[in-house]
Amino acid sequence: MNKTKPDFEAFLRKTFQSPLDSIAGFLLKLGITANLITLFGLVGNIVAAYLIARGQLLAGGLVAAFMAPLDAVDGALARKAGAVGKFGAFLDSVVDRYDEMILLAGVLYYFQTQAYTLGVMLTYAALCGSVLVSYTRARAEGLGFSGKAGIFSRIERAVVLILGLVFNQLFISVGIIAILANVTALQRIFFVWKQSKQT
Amino acid sequence: MNKTKPDFEAFLRKTFQSPLDSIAGFLLKLGITANLITLFGLVGNIVAAYLIARGQLLAGGLVAAFMAPLDAVDGALARKAGAVGKFGAFLDSVVDRYDEMILLAGVLYYFQTQAYTLGVMLTYAALCGSVLVSYTRARAEGLGFSGKAGIFSRIERAVVLILGLVFNQLFISVGIIAILANVTALQRIFFVWKQSKQT
Repeated sequence: MNKTKPDFEAFLRKTFQSPLDSIAGFLLKLGITANLITLFGLVGNIVAAYLIARGQLLAGGLVAAFMAPLDAVDGALARKAGAVGKFGAFLDSVVDRYDEMILLAGVLYYFQTQAYTLGVMLTYAALCGSVLVSYTRARAEGLGFSGKAGIFSRIERAVVLILGLVFNQLFISVGIIAILANVTALQRIFFVWKQSKQT
Repeated sequence: MNKTKPDFEAFLRKTFQSPLDSIAGFLLKLGITANLITLFGLVGNIVAAYLIARGQLLAGGLVAAFMAPLDAVDGALARKAGAVGKFGAFLDSVVDRYDEMILLAGVLYYFQTQAYTLGVMLTYAALCGSVLVSYTRARAEGLGFSGKAGIFSRIERAVVLILGLVFNQLFISVGIIAILANVTALQRIFFVWKQSKQT
């Protein structure tokens, strides 16, 4: 695979590997499991979505910003516990989708209460693009292809949304996600097509 | 798998196997490929969504009703051509997601222009449930599980939406999809969890 983009996720993973492992070790001693962290993140995102829906964008953004790294913590915890089970991987992926859907539901409601049609439609497009990025990869992998390609994966989407909430530029953030997530989904379709031609 | 529900999809498949094969044979002679039918269905759903967005629910419903069986035709055509390629299967699945997203975008816009907040939120929930049903299956299969479970798959969603459009009961249809699609997604998560316990 021709990887020309700087990999933001790999950079974050490398930079925070050591503190993440320390946190994971500490939580492990407390008897906290990876699945528990995953579900705690889900609850946190529901709180963030509720705040956003009420128009408290800064507060919602801060809660979301606190929840986003949990996704890395649960991975580190599962590794440290030596139990990266297949169901754990499945649950982690599915809850990631719920997290995004719930956060964007808050955004959708916020725009809707402002009678902001373009905001509503862009939020819907952002959700569609986001889940298509995940769906194309999952479906590709189920068929034996690789599906990990494209410029705008989950971590970038989370960062852009949180920045938009915290700096009160939600419409711009959602617009960026709507465009780049859908472009990424198309990149993945093209990437799978290229692989199908090679065999 | 404990299959207690009457399988609507299998019933349709059996009933229409013979006419579908005839249509597929005819199209094959004309040089029409399965991927072309898939893409034609996508264009048709865009037209249907546009009509729905403008409030022409009956017309939109009729166009959508004409497009829905195409998904069975492209499968029959691919089988008859002896070329059920892996990329064809991938494209078919991904375009199915686009079809649903585009149709529901029309519904969302329609409710939005009516300032009908509950309709907007239910449409969003219907979309989320619909893609989660597909995503949980694709992700499960990528991890080696079976993901085909649940009461409310794509064909049922399409029928309920089309009936709502044609009989001007869109809100009820969208509400049914929002509830049953999300229940089906939860059923699939539970189904994968049960499988993970068996190993």
